[in-house]
Amino acid sequence: MSELTDPHRLRRPTLRVRRLGIDTYREPVVYLRADCHVCRSEGFQAQERVLVRASARTIVATLNVLHNGLIESTDIGLSEAAFALLGAEAGEQVELAHPHALESMSDVRRKIYGGRLDPPALERIVRDVSAGRYTDVEIAALVTACSGTNLDRAEIAALTRAMVDVGETLHWNVEPVLDKHSVGGLPGNRTTPIVVAIIASCGLTMPKTSSRAITSAAGTADVMETLAPVELDLAAMRRVVEREGGCIVWGGAVRLSPADDLMIRVERVLDLDSDGQMVASVLSKKVAAGATHVLIDMPVGPTAKVRDAASAERLHGHLLAVGHELGMQVRVVQTDGTQPVGRGIGPALEARDVLAVLDGDAAAPGDLRERALTLAGGLLECAARAEAGQGVVLARDALASGRARQKFAAICEAQGGMRKPPVAPYVHGVEATRGGVIEALDNRRLARIAKLAGAPRAAAAGVELHVRRGARVAHGEPLFTIHAEAPGELAYALDYVHGSEPALRIRELA
Amino acid sequence: MSELTDPHRLRRPTLRVRRLGIDTYREPVVYLRADCHVCRSEGFQAQERVLVRASARTIVATLNVLHNGLIESTDIGLSEAAFALLGAEAGEQVELAHPHALESMSDVRRKIYGGRLDPPALERIVRDVSAGRYTDVEIAALVTACSGTNLDRAEIAALTRAMVDVGETLHWNVEPVLDKHSVGGLPGNRTTPIVVAIIASCGLTMPKTSSRAITSAAGTADVMETLAPVELDLAAMRRVVEREGGCIVWGGAVRLSPADDLMIRVERVLDLDSDGQMVASVLSKKVAAGATHVLIDMPVGPTAKVRDAASAERLHGHLLAVGHELGMQVRVVQTDGTQPVGRGIGPALEARDVLAVLDGDAAAPGDLRERALTLAGGLLECAARAEAGQGVVLARDALASGRARQKFAAICEAQGGMRKPPVAPYVHGVEATRGGVIEALDNRRLARIAKLAGAPRAAAAGVELHVRRGARVAHGEPLFTIHAEAPGELAYALDYVHGSEPALRIRELA
Repeated sequence: MSELTDPHRLRRPTLRVRRLGIDTYREPVVYLRADCHVCRSEGFQAQERVLVRASARTIVATLNVLHNGLIESTDIGLSEAAFALLGAEAGEQVELAHPHALESMSDVRRKIYGGRLDPPALERIVRDVSAGRYTDVEIAALVTACSGTNLDRAEIAALTRAMVDVGETLHWNVEPVLDKHSVGGLPGNRTTPIVVAIIASCGLTMPKTSSRAITSAAGTADVMETLAPVELDLAAMRRVVEREGGCIVWGGAVRLSPADDLMIRVERVLDLDSDGQMVASVLSKKVAAGATHVLIDMPVGPTAKVRDAASAERLHGHLLAVGHELGMQVRVVQTDGTQPVGRGIGPALEARDVLAVLDGDAAAPGDLRERALTLAGGLLECAARAEAGQGVVLARDALASGRARQKFAAICEAQGGMRKPPVAPYVHGVEATRGGVIEALDNRRLARIAKLAGAPRAAAAGVELHVRRGARVAHGEPLFTIHAEAPGELAYALDYVHGSEPALRIRELA
Repeated sequence: MSELTDPHRLRRPTLRVRRLGIDTYREPVVYLRADCHVCRSEGFQAQERVLVRASARTIVATLNVLHNGLIESTDIGLSEAAFALLGAEAGEQVELAHPHALESMSDVRRKIYGGRLDPPALERIVRDVSAGRYTDVEIAALVTACSGTNLDRAEIAALTRAMVDVGETLHWNVEPVLDKHSVGGLPGNRTTPIVVAIIASCGLTMPKTSSRAITSAAGTADVMETLAPVELDLAAMRRVVEREGGCIVWGGAVRLSPADDLMIRVERVLDLDSDGQMVASVLSKKVAAGATHVLIDMPVGPTAKVRDAASAERLHGHLLAVGHELGMQVRVVQTDGTQPVGRGIGPALEARDVLAVLDGDAAAPGDLRERALTLAGGLLECAARAEAGQGVVLARDALASGRARQKFAAICEAQGGMRKPPVAPYVHGVEATRGGVIEALDNRRLARIAKLAGAPRAAAAGVELHVRRGARVAHGEPLFTIHAEAPGELAYALDYVHGSEPALRIRELA
């Protein structure tokens, strides 16, 4: 054997880390030059998966090949996600290799071919997903295989448990711990701040973590942030809950069910509905948050997330059964999902609606108030604080007496100080192009208009609705007002309004 | 209405094209700075899909967000794929917008939820895929939904037809037009040059287009390229076929079944098997190539693409039926897929085997010769040039008489001139670590070793096998030799040999 061909004399060559500042969201991407020796000798090709080994950690990333002078041929460029995951330092030398196949992808393939996933398989899958070992393409195969009604109840329960196990879990020294969740897709459905205020004012515990918008015009955390700080860490959250019995904070600081976010994102890109993923997503976060009694608000309507009665019944059954299996009392309330709730769509506009209801303002949106009372009442009954049918009476009293309003203000103060929602400098009314009766409102189009106007990033931006389903309007009467923080964004929203199907359908009267 | 809020006074802002030289394979990616005005006002986020409108064309691409000074905030960076698809010029101003949802993804979702795909739906899907409108994530959902046995025969036939319809189709002024295909996964299975030479020497027409390796150590085009030029355009290919009756050229210059490549790539990344995709892929290319009689070589074995008899039978049935429906005579030959064919794995090493068989060399690998004769014989029978059982006799005569060898040389000359395969400067023998009988050879591991040694990029690189299944070996006897063009590559291959499960399993004799 010649010296040249003795493998033990040849070290695996290394590459120098360069942070490139390219944001590829969660997918770690590395960049190598086409003439890089490692790229050539390992036969790596663009979009292939490569194993990157640094002193701190080893990750798997997607390869992009560079035909430019951005980096040297002895460098490896890292996207922001790759840099964060690898925990490397700029200039550090790292090794590259072909990654081993993911064992849990064999489980996914078995499911794709029509098999079932047992609890150990779901644990392997969720562990790998939450560790960032799946590419978006692999997650796409996973969520496709698990979508629709492809998971049975036992699989859904096992998925839920696996999602809980890979994240953190909160423990509270009281019982019951109440929680609520609204199934997405209904703009303006901002009952949470009102429900938490009512429940906490009744002396019960409701440590609510909420999300920011992913594809909607506002998440509860976005709305609440226009009224008080929401980015509290776990210790701060505990202090608020111990003092006031409730909080409404952003859940992002607490790592509950980390696999879920990654799967949901791909599912939304593909616009897939999935019973199993939906149930596991909602319930895993509730178990992880330490809830004992959970109320689920499930809006049903043709442009809501749950579109018909059959889907609603199926999900309803899964939520109760899986919740029970994971040791929680779950109550599901099916609500009207045929039109937005309240008047505002967008953080500040929705916050205004919330305040009006809490203030007992005569002009407050009645649908938001009644929905919040129904949910709070259901939760009080679920936690055995009210007889059947009496929960809503108790809730209405808490609201009418001003106790809920006081509690809300106290929670805001405890979270760092109550503040006033901002007001948009640019507004533009959209008028009825003919007279008639409002026959239908498209939740998705209205949310789209609010987003084009800048929501949720621009907190004051969004849509203010002036009419509801069944209302009679005259030609030229205002249907809704677009709010924006910049003229360009107002123009984008108006472009869309004028260039696509109307968001409100008007039936002319005979 | 103020001037500022009049939408008609506001033009959609444009961005200046910058070609960044980043190779993301087929997926078009665009890069915007986080502080880019369009990025902010449209609310675009990393990994989102954006519509890019240039003067020439409009494409949909994936967005990466830049936090560096690589481009200006008024620029849009384009990956190589995006640049090619858009047909833009560097410096050109382009517009950005939110893309419309792909209609055909609704069809895919229907399939995911358990529905069937009718011919118009498959046409829409294949048209969008071939136009590059699907992201890899969307293709992943598509191939997952269509994998395993999820497509029925009618769906497979419609998919095949749709794939033919979006590509180019060749027409020949003769009949019959013969073709063959080997289902992948078997290293060294290089019968094509021999079969084409035999068939053409019998006066029949066989215009063969072959592929380069995608994940294997050599494609037929890679092997043939060590013997003659293969990158011929359609006109040159026609001249060769008119003169010699056959050719063996690279199919990449002819755009047959363009959707297929994109789907296969994602399928391979996910390591998914799919009856429908496999049948449609093979047959669509044959229809598009103008074939009337097609022979399919289907190796069956535990480490081949088709792993067991049940899968082989199912595929066999689909291939005959769908071929018939598309107007072709198809014959399927199930062959031994338990070990590589011939001695070489890698372009030049396989070319040596091919030449030895054509030359009638006594030391030529008998398995390669017999397999080529079986396939050529089957094809002659399929095209009614021989009675049942007589095809192989005719083929053997063409080979033994030297007519096939002459024809092969003539084809090479017509393609641009015959040449000698290169020889590797670095070789290293791998020896048996104990004596016994060779019980099994792992096709996948052997291919992996050849690839690590540089194949197919380094044409002389690969693996040369010295033993076959059932052979008795003594301790220290050479099992195979690794060939490489560079010492580093030889080391990579040896690292793998020493660091993983053996590619050959030796059973010790009692």
